[in-house]
Amino acid sequence: MSEFEAAWVAIKQELLDHFSGEGMPKDVAEWYERSLDYNVLGGKLNRGMSVVDTVEILKGRALTSDEYMQAAVLGWSVEMLQAVFLVADDIMDSSVTRRGQPCWYRVPRVGYIAINDSFMLESAIYFLLKKHFRAESYYVDLLDLFHETTYQTEMGQLIDQLTAPEDKVDLSTFSLNRHSLIVIYKTAYYSFYLPVALAMHMCRVPATYTIDSTNVQPYESAKSILIPLGEYFQIQDDFLDFSGTPEQIGKIGTDILDNKCSWCINTALELASPEQRMVLDENYGRKDAVAEGRVKAVFEEVGLRQRYHGYEEGVYEELVRMIEAIPETQQEGTLKREVFRSFLNKVYKREK
Amino acid sequence: MSEFEAAWVAIKQELLDHFSGEGMPKDVAEWYERSLDYNVLGGKLNRGMSVVDTVEILKGRALTSDEYMQAAVLGWSVEMLQAVFLVADDIMDSSVTRRGQPCWYRVPRVGYIAINDSFMLESAIYFLLKKHFRAESYYVDLLDLFHETTYQTEMGQLIDQLTAPEDKVDLSTFSLNRHSLIVIYKTAYYSFYLPVALAMHMCRVPATYTIDSTNVQPYESAKSILIPLGEYFQIQDDFLDFSGTPEQIGKIGTDILDNKCSWCINTALELASPEQRMVLDENYGRKDAVAEGRVKAVFEEVGLRQRYHGYEEGVYEELVRMIEAIPETQQEGTLKREVFRSFLNKVYKREK
Repeated sequence: MSEFEAAWVAIKQELLDHFSGEGMPKDVAEWYERSLDYNVLGGKLNRGMSVVDTVEILKGRALTSDEYMQAAVLGWSVEMLQAVFLVADDIMDSSVTRRGQPCWYRVPRVGYIAINDSFMLESAIYFLLKKHFRAESYYVDLLDLFHETTYQTEMGQLIDQLTAPEDKVDLSTFSLNRHSLIVIYKTAYYSFYLPVALAMHMCRVPATYTIDSTNVQPYESAKSILIPLGEYFQIQDDFLDFSGTPEQIGKIGTDILDNKCSWCINTALELASPEQRMVLDENYGRKDAVAEGRVKAVFEEVGLRQRYHGYEEGVYEELVRMIEAIPETQQEGTLKREVFRSFLNKVYKREK
Repeated sequence: MSEFEAAWVAIKQELLDHFSGEGMPKDVAEWYERSLDYNVLGGKLNRGMSVVDTVEILKGRALTSDEYMQAAVLGWSVEMLQAVFLVADDIMDSSVTRRGQPCWYRVPRVGYIAINDSFMLESAIYFLLKKHFRAESYYVDLLDLFHETTYQTEMGQLIDQLTAPEDKVDLSTFSLNRHSLIVIYKTAYYSFYLPVALAMHMCRVPATYTIDSTNVQPYESAKSILIPLGEYFQIQDDFLDFSGTPEQIGKIGTDILDNKCSWCINTALELASPEQRMVLDENYGRKDAVAEGRVKAVFEEVGLRQRYHGYEEGVYEELVRMIEAIPETQQEGTLKREVFRSFLNKVYKREK
């Protein structure tokens, strides 16, 4: 078990101790513990661990054990926020499995109690933040950041639900603009900006500072890099769903069958001839392998692979340029280019 | 339209302006507006207006228009929090109607998007608190209070769901203790303590103060009165569901048919003979008017009405005693007995 995973054991115990302290009966506390483990664990923990990594980069040294615990609480809070969304989204999407096991709402006896469990995962975040950060000057900034990011993610989920309803295929509501909005709001803010901004608050990076008489707005800088980086990550995900082999990506892509508002279909819609457009209209989002094959053929015909590689090279260069343009000193409490380089290197040309 | 309702128009506009400012498309903004009106309006607004009333009592004078707006934001935030719970609970309970119209999730095209709408109502609260209170010294107290109350209400909903699952009747999980826990957590904290504590923060009532060398902990005092008062209110609600006529309470009581963990069944279980217990086991929670009649007959046999009136007189006297024991001065920023008298008078012997 990694140090980060060991922190979860302690964090979960804090939640359960508080629960008993409130006088919750044993069966209720057992339910809560099962929900916490089932829904928070089982993912790759990239988002959560990136908080700890970023704190280490910003401090430029190994963390004390107190610092590690605080950073881990922030990291696990991001993982819990993701769990909030996954539990709820799986109900909204009628999904069947998640992380290789049945979705929580499909577990016997759970059903729609999952909705309340999702809310409780969110409340647990604020309990933990209060316990570990109430005395810090930046406590209120952490709360504001979680609130805003949560709201943004919900906005993204709403646009997604209205654009690609599970039961009705209508490609006329799709567009690359709409795709970009969905991806930025539904994924990029909470997966990329949130972990870094939390780490910056913990390292007491102020809202503005000056380096060599240049005014820096570090949170705006971070956002201006991490939002396009998050968009790139999701576009990659969309492209891998189409192009990746099951051995490579560890799952079978189902975006075409599931009527997903993915980068691939939106790009194909921009490039398609009227005849190809008809093929897409008639075959996208049907639960049928033949229809899926026809859509994939159009994706190949319009040159989707080449488009993707062009996009990837372009966004990579632009991100490198933006990262290198960040004014930097070795002073504590300022932004470091390495934070973004580290993210970009994990994403660039990944194959799973 | 009352002044309080007029404030909603302004508050909703702030939410929609922010939404457009974030670049949300027109169809998405229209959806959000419809969700806000459908789910926040249509109730009696008792909880929300009690924040404004309490601020007026604590200040001992009419409010300036700026003060009114701040108090109204807190009041509408309580109404929005209630909307969060109602939208979600209706799905969990498979409810059909709410406030005389279809539950939101049963409105065409809505379905499980209602889950995300419920989350967005919650995020809207924090957006409004930030906009109207970020500069106040007590901003962080408002956030902590909303977080804690939300968590408590979710705990109450979880106990309720596990105690009285919609699809399985098992009276052996019921008890008056369990009922008390459900009622306090699911209803009393957010309906009674939250509005008063919010008003106290707005009036800058500190965590402790001294009157005539007596140390006062005003939030603890408020809680010690408002939680039993909220429990009394819910027990009254449960009793009226059984005893009230449709003309009187404006609805037909369905707690027996719906397997509700109500004060009536829990009290009857304590008083029932083995024969009466069998009648309850066999007839409670069946969707059947004859079974319901048999349960009601047992309620009458065990003397439920008398029990209720005894309970009501006892709790009323005890609450009056506690209210009169609060140390009071005319100084600003201290607790006033009138806050609690005003609540108690609205609840005592109400018939609807």
